[in-house]
Formats: sequence, C-alpha cells, structure tokens
Amino acid sequence: MGYGMAMSLLKAGHGVYGFDVAEDIVKRFCEAGGQRGSVDEVAPTMDTAVIVVLNAAQAESVLFGDSGFARRMKPGSCVISCATMAPQKARDLAGRCKEYDVLYLDAPISGGAVKAAAGKLSIMASGKPETFAAARPALDAMAETVFELGDEVGPGSAMKAVNQLLAGVHIASMAEAMTFGMKQGIAAERIVEVITASAGNSWMFENRAPHVVAGDYFPHSAIDIWLKDLGIVMDIARSERFSAPLTAAALQQFVAASGSGLGQEDDAAVAKVYARNAGITLPAGE
Amino acid sequence: MGYGMAMSLLKAGHGVYGFDVAEDIVKRFCEAGGQRGSVDEVAPTMDTAVIVVLNAAQAESVLFGDSGFARRMKPGSCVISCATMAPQKARDLAGRCKEYDVLYLDAPISGGAVKAAAGKLSIMASGKPETFAAARPALDAMAETVFELGDEVGPGSAMKAVNQLLAGVHIASMAEAMTFGMKQGIAAERIVEVITASAGNSWMFENRAPHVVAGDYFPHSAIDIWLKDLGIVMDIARSERFSAPLTAAALQQFVAASGSGLGQEDDAAVAKVYARNAGITLPAGE
Repeated sequence: MGYGMAMSLLKAGHGVYGFDVAEDIVKRFCEAGGQRGSVDEVAPTMDTAVIVVLNAAQAESVLFGDSGFARRMKPGSCVISCATMAPQKARDLAGRCKEYDVLYLDAPISGGAVKAAAGKLSIMASGKPETFAAARPALDAMAETVFELGDEVGPGSAMKAVNQLLAGVHIASMAEAMTFGMKQGIAAERIVEVITASAGNSWMFENRAPHVVAGDYFPHSAIDIWLKDLGIVMDIARSERFSAPLTAAALQQFVAASGSGLGQEDDAAVAKVYARNAGITLPAGE
Repeated sequence: MGYGMAMSLLKAGHGVYGFDVAEDIVKRFCEAGGQRGSVDEVAPTMDTAVIVVLNAAQAESVLFGDSGFARRMKPGSCVISCATMAPQKARDLAGRCKEYDVLYLDAPISGGAVKAAAGKLSIMASGKPETFAAARPALDAMAETVFELGDEVGPGSAMKAVNQLLAGVHIASMAEAMTFGMKQGIAAERIVEVITASAGNSWMFENRAPHVVAGDYFPHSAIDIWLKDLGIVMDIARSERFSAPLTAAALQQFVAASGSGLGQEDDAAVAKVYARNAGITLPAGE
C-alpha cells in the first residue's frame, strides 16, 4: 500500500522520496519518477513523512530507531502514521515526536492496495488542528475520504480497531455461513447469489465469499493480518476491561488457519478450517 | 408479516381468507376487504394456504392439529410454508402433507413487515416443479424476489438458516463494535458515520446501529427472535456435526439479553448487555 500512496503523492505533484526495506520497490518507485536518498540527508528537508508499516513496533523503529526520522525532521514538520495500533501506543509515539517538535497525525488507512494506488483511500484521522493543516496536502493526494475524528491522537486508531473488529468477524462469519450452507448441500455460488441480495450481507461477505466460490486464495489480504489486527482489538479490549466474545471466537478461527499452514493465504481461506472440521470439500480453483 | 402478505394477495385480486389467533387482526383484515370463515368450510375451497407462523411447532399445529388444514384441503392444492425451521422438519411436514395429496413449498421469507405489506418480500423457496406452478400466483403477489433453490423440500429452509446465521452474528457484532468504540470515547454517531462508509459495514450494521444511536429499542425485530433462529442454526449445526463458534457466541449474547429482561425489545438492545459488562452508558432515547 505504501507504494500506491507514494505514487498518488507523486501524481499530485509533490516531491516524494521512497524508503522501503525491499530494494526492488524503491528501484521501481524511482523508475516511476520518485526519488531516493539517505535518512540523514532527506529527513531534515521533509515537510511530511507518511509511515506505512505493518505495526506499532515498525512505526516506532522508523520514527525512533538508529536511522529514525523523528530526531532528524525539522520543527513543525508532520508525521502521518498509518499502521493499525492500539490508541495508547499511538499516544506514546505522538508524545515522543513532540519532544522533537514534530507533529503526529493518528491516521490509520482503509481501502487496500488498489484504492491506495488510485489516491482513494479512507483515512480515519485524529490530531491537533495544526497537524491536520500540515498534513492536508498529503491527505488530499492520498485519500478520497478523511474522517476527522477529533483533535487528540487516539480516536483515529480506536476507530480503525472498531472497523477491524467488524471486518474480521464478518470474514469469519462469511466462512462459517458458506460452509454451513455447503454442509447442507447448497452450492457455494447459490449462497453468494442469495445472501448478497438479503439481510445477511456484509461488505466483507460480498468481497470475500466469491474467493471461496472460485477456490482462489491468492492473498489480497492474508490470514496473518487478522492475527495482528484482531490481536490488537483483543489487547485493547482486555486493557479497557471490555468483553468481546465474537472477536475472540473469530480470532481463534484465524489462529487455527495460521497454525495449519494457511497464514500467507487470502483471509477467505479461514473457510478451510471450517471445511476441515465439517468434513466437506470446498470448490477448487483452476 | 402475515397481515401484510394477506393484504398483498388481496391487492393482487385474489380471494383471501384470513386466519389468526388474534381476533382484532382478522377483524381489521375483513374491514380491508378480506374474508373470514371456519377451517371446515374454507379449507376445502382453497387453492393455496400461506402459513406464516413463528416456528415449526406452530406450522405443524396449523397443518395437522384438530383444526388443521392439510386433511381438509383438496388434492393438488398447495401449502406455502414460511416459518423458519430446520430442513429436516420441513421435510417431515412435506411428507405428512403428501399423505393428503397436498403440495408443500419450503418457502421461508425475508424482508420484514414493511416489505411484506408492499408485496416485496424475498422468498427462499424449494419444492417440486408442480408445487412452484401451483404456488406461483401467490408468490407473484407477495414477493419481489423468489430464489428457486431446487426441486426438493429442504434447501429453502437451509438457505434461510444460512441468512439467519449471518444476520444474527452481524447484529451481535454491531453491538460489540459500537460499545467497543464508545468504551474508547468515540461518540456512537461517529462510529455509524465511519463504519457505514468502510469495509466493516453490513446490512444489519447499517440497519440496527442507528437504533443504538437513537436509544430507540421499539421492537421491529425482537431479541427473542434470535434465541429461536440462532437456536435453529445451532440445532442444525449439532445434528450435522458442524462447528459454529461465532454463531454460538452470538447466541449467548442474545440469551444474556433475554435473561436480563430484554427479550421483547428490539434486537439492537443486545448492545445493553455489552454496555453493562463494560460499565458504559448508551445513548438514551426521547
């Protein structure tokens, strides 16, 4: 997603430096018109750093590691932090950025790689008005919708966790329902046809159930993403003393999928756990 | 829903007799142009009986009780059976109808009272071609969409169970997500605004979350419906040796809602169980 977002910034006319642990991605970005450089040289010149990494630990490393950006960026510059993480973690990172007079926008993203490349992400953002002002040119280039969720760091991450709770539960419930119907002898494609036109539908059902019908588990979004994201939801929930039984049940199905070797398959492959447990065969791909 | 469906049949020009344990409903139906009569007199004249009751036991009573229709209906006439029930139960009822040469359409309905009155239900139907042919005039009057799911009794009920699994899990996950966000300090209406535009959305979230925002628990569909419908799903699941952990978790939240006195409130009131367990206060109604 970082590559698509960098390309959207480039298309909007910004000067953009690409950083990635994967050298081939940086090379491709430069061939497409982007720039590269060392953190030491580039960070002090930047108005905005967009951090698109997997989790809080990676964000912390990018910001505060030996080659971290925060201490090298100029006062009043801005970090747009896009990883899904617990709100308390986002507040911690924002507090440490403040020591360097660097503004921090709590800005988890939603929409996937295709929307990232088209500059049409949804961003669930919160932060001070001056942070939004500093981030605005980059946000405009990357997002179709920016939800402004308050003037503190935290609500952006909290809202992302709410969305991931639902998305994860809905993927697992898609798998539960599809295999429940198949176990009773209904063809997978008939279930998709009826449910997408009925009250049982969800955004995730409509998006993921066709993967089960096609037997196509190419990872658009992998099983292991949900061990991370529903893990974050459960961490927040325990810390806030919030009982979340559906999330807990969904997480266990993704854990079983990962534990049985499916961690890098598409998240619709959680249906394989159900199919195995029910003694049924899913549709096979090409 | 039976009243709305009877009215749709009436509007389509059919002669319709109304039967209901609630006398005031029958009276209202007659004032609107419907007819009434005794089962002994009416049943032998009917082409089609539409059975819109709560569960399999009521359907059995209507068909085979002392005042039952099945033995009084003429050979080749047709029963459209709309209650949600296990496929095996539907097959049992169909088998007993066959003893009287009465055709049985396995035809659970979806859409609620408003769509019922507008003749715009979805019907998940299965049965023999001659049963569909006999039922067609009534189906055309009552339904916007008739999913034809095969030429045996069973798949209609199975598909309805698949839909109810998803719908019930999605209502409970709506409640889990709304209260999870509120526990973190996000206003309920912001959650609805963001989620309905994001990948965490579902048909049920979009329909029921506004009830929580408004603090309005007038029962459009009551908590206790889900004890019945998810109970049917779990009965099928156990009997088919199908493990359904999300359904099981959702059912327990509805059981807790009913057990704490909320059984006749709108099903969105399952959020009250979460709120109580998390020590938060939901938005109050007018």
